[in-house]
This record gives sequence, C-alpha cells and structure tokens, in this order.
Amino acid sequence: MTLAQIGEDELLARIFPLLPVPAATSLGPGDDAAVIASGIGETGIVLTTDTMVRGKDWLDEWSSAADVGAKCVAQNLADVAAMGARPAGLLVTLIADAATPLQWAVELSRGIGQAAAAADTGVLGGDLSSAGAGVLSVSITAVGRLDGPPVTRSGARPGDVVAVAGTLGRAAAGLELFLAGDWQDARADAVELLSAQRCPSPPLAAGPRAAQAGARAMIDLSDGLVRDAGRVAAASGVRIELLAEALAQDIAALAPFVGGEAARACVLAGGEEHSLLACFPAEQELPQGLPQGFRPIGRVLAAGPEGPGVTVDGVAPQVSGWDHFGG
Amino acid sequence: MTLAQIGEDELLARIFPLLPVPAATSLGPGDDAAVIASGIGETGIVLTTDTMVRGKDWLDEWSSAADVGAKCVAQNLADVAAMGARPAGLLVTLIADAATPLQWAVELSRGIGQAAAAADTGVLGGDLSSAGAGVLSVSITAVGRLDGPPVTRSGARPGDVVAVAGTLGRAAAGLELFLAGDWQDARADAVELLSAQRCPSPPLAAGPRAAQAGARAMIDLSDGLVRDAGRVAAASGVRIELLAEALAQDIAALAPFVGGEAARACVLAGGEEHSLLACFPAEQELPQGLPQGFRPIGRVLAAGPEGPGVTVDGVAPQVSGWDHFGG
Repeated sequence: MTLAQIGEDELLARIFPLLPVPAATSLGPGDDAAVIASGIGETGIVLTTDTMVRGKDWLDEWSSAADVGAKCVAQNLADVAAMGARPAGLLVTLIADAATPLQWAVELSRGIGQAAAAADTGVLGGDLSSAGAGVLSVSITAVGRLDGPPVTRSGARPGDVVAVAGTLGRAAAGLELFLAGDWQDARADAVELLSAQRCPSPPLAAGPRAAQAGARAMIDLSDGLVRDAGRVAAASGVRIELLAEALAQDIAALAPFVGGEAARACVLAGGEEHSLLACFPAEQELPQGLPQGFRPIGRVLAAGPEGPGVTVDGVAPQVSGWDHFGG
Repeated sequence: MTLAQIGEDELLARIFPLLPVPAATSLGPGDDAAVIASGIGETGIVLTTDTMVRGKDWLDEWSSAADVGAKCVAQNLADVAAMGARPAGLLVTLIADAATPLQWAVELSRGIGQAAAAADTGVLGGDLSSAGAGVLSVSITAVGRLDGPPVTRSGARPGDVVAVAGTLGRAAAGLELFLAGDWQDARADAVELLSAQRCPSPPLAAGPRAAQAGARAMIDLSDGLVRDAGRVAAASGVRIELLAEALAQDIAALAPFVGGEAARACVLAGGEEHSLLACFPAEQELPQGLPQGFRPIGRVLAAGPEGPGVTVDGVAPQVSGWDHFGG
C-alpha cells in the first residue's frame, strides 16, 4: 500500500501513535501550531512548520522565487498568528537540485527576507541540502511568542460569534484565472487575484489582537472556509453556522472574474487564503465589539443530533477537500 | 551560474545579507543552533534544523526507514546538545513521492519515535508534502532548553583543554565498509561500524554536562574533527592543537577494518559522527576534572601569524571537506 492509496488523514492516524509527545508540552500536534511552556506564567512558545514543493505547491511559470519565499513565510506566520502569537523567528530549509540557478536561491532569500521583515521578524537559521534533478522545495519552521494562553481550535461555545479577519476566496480565484490560461493579459484588478494566489497577505497582527480580545477559538484558513471551520467545529464539539448574507459581498466581488458558481466555491472552499477565523464571546460580552479587522460571518450553535459540523443558512454545503497524497 | 558552481559557503555568503535576524535573538545563524531568549534570566530556547535526502544522505540499500528517522533525530539533537541544551521537542517534515510505501513512512515514524523517546523528548508537530517520482526527504527542526547561557563556538581561549565526548571516525569507517561493497557478510564488530554509519549515537547528555562544568566553546562533529575544530578555532580566533597520541587508540581501533591510512582519515576527517568537541578551562581550574564522558585530545593555543586553525602535533593536517552542492 502506498501513501497515495492510504491518504493523508489515515497516514497521520497510523503514525501519531508511534510519536511520543515531549513532557513539558502545553499543546501537541493537531492545532495550527504546537506550544511549549516558556516557564513564565501562562505564556509560551509556539512552533509550526510548512513546506512548499515545486510542481505541487507552485509552478515556476506562475510564481517567481521571491513569491515562493514570501508565500512560505506567510503560510507559516499565519499559523503562528492563529494561536494568538507574535512571530519570533524562522528556520528555512532549501532542498535543491545542484543545477538550480544561483539567482533563484538569491531571489527566494530576498522574498523570505522581505516577508519576514514586514512581519517584524527574521531568520534564525536553516539548512541547505542537494537533491535529484528538478527537485526544489522550501520548508520553514516558524517560532512565535504568546503573551497569554494560546487560542486553540477547541474553545468555541454555543452563542459565540464567528468572525473572520482578512479576505475570502481571492487566492482560489487567482488559481482559477491561472488555470484558465489567459492570465498574462489580465486586467489590473485581476492581477490582484493572481497576486493573492502567488503570495497571500495574512492579517498577522489580527491574531494577537483576537487573543487579547478574548477569542475562544481560532484557525488559519489554509484549506478553505468550510473545511477549516469544520476543524474548529469538530475540535470544539459545536456546529458553526455561517450566514450567506455575510459572505455575499465576498462572492459578488469575485463573480466578474470567475463566474458566480465558481466565486461561491472559492469563498466557501478555496484554500491558501490564510485569513483568520475566530470565535468570540457573543458581541454583547465584548464592550468594544470585535477586535479591529474582524467582521462577523456566523454563529456557533450547539451540535445537533448529526454531530459537529458547518452549515450555511442551516444547510451543510457540498465542498471538496484536498489531500496531499490522495489528490 | 548554478548552486553547484558557486558552492555552499559562497551561496550562504550571498543570501545571509538578504535575511534579517529577528529582534530578540540571543544568537542568530552560524552556530550549531540559534538561541532566542526565554525571558527568564540568561536561559533561552535553542532551535536548529537538519534534513536528509534519499540518494544524498542515505541509500535504501544500506539504511532502513527506521535508521533514517533515528539518524535525523540524532543529527538534530546533537546540535541541541552542542549548545549545552536539553531537547524540548521536534517538528518533522516528510516530503515524499505519493508512491512511497506506507510501510516506509510507518517505519520512519517508529525510528523517529524511538530515538526521541530515548532522548527523553518527542514530536511537537510537522508537515507532510507530496513530491515528484522518487523524491523522499526528512527534515527535522529540534527545539531545546538552556539552563544557562549557551555554549557557542567562539569562547575558546588559549590554555583551554580540548576534549571530546563520544567516538571518533566510526561512522566514516562504516561508510568505507559500505563503499567497499562486501558489507553484507560483515563480522559482528564490523557490523557495529555499519550501524554507526546508519545511525550515530551522539552523547547527548554530555552537552548540558559540559555547559554545567563551564565549557567555553562546543561543537557537534558533523563534518569531521579537523573541519569542525577549525570552525571553533575560526570563531574563537585561536589555534586548536590536537595531540596525535590522544587519537592513536581511535585510529588503531579502526585500522583492522579499513587499513591504517583510511583509519587516520576517518578519525581526523570523517563526518556524521555527531560526537561533541568542547573546550574547557585548563584542568587545574576545574576541581573535578573534565565532566563525565569527556577525554582530553588537545590544547587551545594562541593563533600564530598564519591565523586561526587546527594542527596535529604542530602540523596542519591535509583533510578534505564536504560541500552539499559542490560535492
């Protein structure tokens, strides 16, 4: 049996029992990032890692080396932000065919450096490895600091307001445009969607703000709104009800570029957006309303007899997922 | 120009200026591991990352998946130990052709889990990515905790005693036996050398012990005794004088397997041993002598007119190095 045949979720289910969790771990695998205690009160250090592989996570025809570097930083820092943490540094691993142009590695580093600097962080270290013909991958481990307890996926409670910081569906709409093939002559507003696919701009500062404001659960939208909201629902044992009305403008903004049907799919299921989804105590409990950058898009309800899940105006949406090995 | 043409050192020299170092970093890139302040006194968190690629860092004919997992853990934890830190957790990234057998991934995880448990640590998280046909790589980021200031490469002072914890040259001698080709019928004592190549056993506990005992500089022997001692010499601005007499037994132990000339090369230049080289204040300054597990193999001298470097009985040894891209 191969990895493709078993798929990512079942593979993880097979290997997790073989991997001990370190003793002083506050939070092990399974959330956006792990947490180890810093030793000071309830604060901690968060750790996460995310990899990009040429041909799977990017195509050289669409993305520059600087795009790849900046995107890999963004993906990792979004996971840090989703715990409510601030970035403390990155470790970068480049696995490259020795025939890779020097200029590509230099531009990758420039993209990483600029994205890190924009997030007020930088590079702590890394590793270089050579690999076979055509192989090129970038792995980043991001480290963050918490000022208080981490915001996990499991704290949502019925009555909470569901809110999002950042855009929805734009990276996926950009991918649609790339796949449609006529992107090289794109209009200026379409180029913004292509850019969102090449390199997302997660609302990193909104993560610690949400934690400060009392967010009870949070996740980075890497695999699509419904799928990632479903992870919060499952971890918290609740139903997350999204309001179609609250998403209508996101869909309408994308429809002229990809059509109405695809626009809805992008908003509900589009991956790689790296916006933040958070659940807050119902608004009346927050004297100052939602923290800056967040807008309400739904409610947390008690899980019904069908168990935890996600609904849009009461109906479970049909969206497809993504499996690294199964495709 | 390609990565192969420019080589690893020059590539690093080109990209380091593009990578900002995070603000609260106690120690950035360039040592065995980076250090960020934990916020408590002089203690800190150390971070390091190391990758293994099939066909470059291992061959399936020689190494089981469990060997690869355990070796990748050992390499990373040796870097943690070389700072004087204790392991606090690992993040593991597997980049694999989707046609990789499930059993390989399961055995890899078993090897990682066992090596982590033996070092009293475990796995905090990780990432899975698919890649093209035949690609298989394992990257680990290791996190450690310091009980005091880190032991860097730059603190050696003339008069210090140079000591090593762990074996010398055994992994390289094992590689010689593999390359010689008749390893499948190896005698029991030769099998131990093959095992040292498949998976080293770094003296991890000796690292924090050395820090506790006042080690002024330390490094993990990943690229060979002379090359790694040279890094300490360069960072500290000193000459490291190794005593041939202190290495004679290490060489004699390997000579029956690989011949006297190769045995000397293995001890002086053999990589992947992951023993610890440390410099301590001259023995009279240490009431209890060297910490458990360390044996003296040389002295730190002032750098002469020829600058920092390494000598054996006063002579600069001729040893070859290793470049990931240049070969």
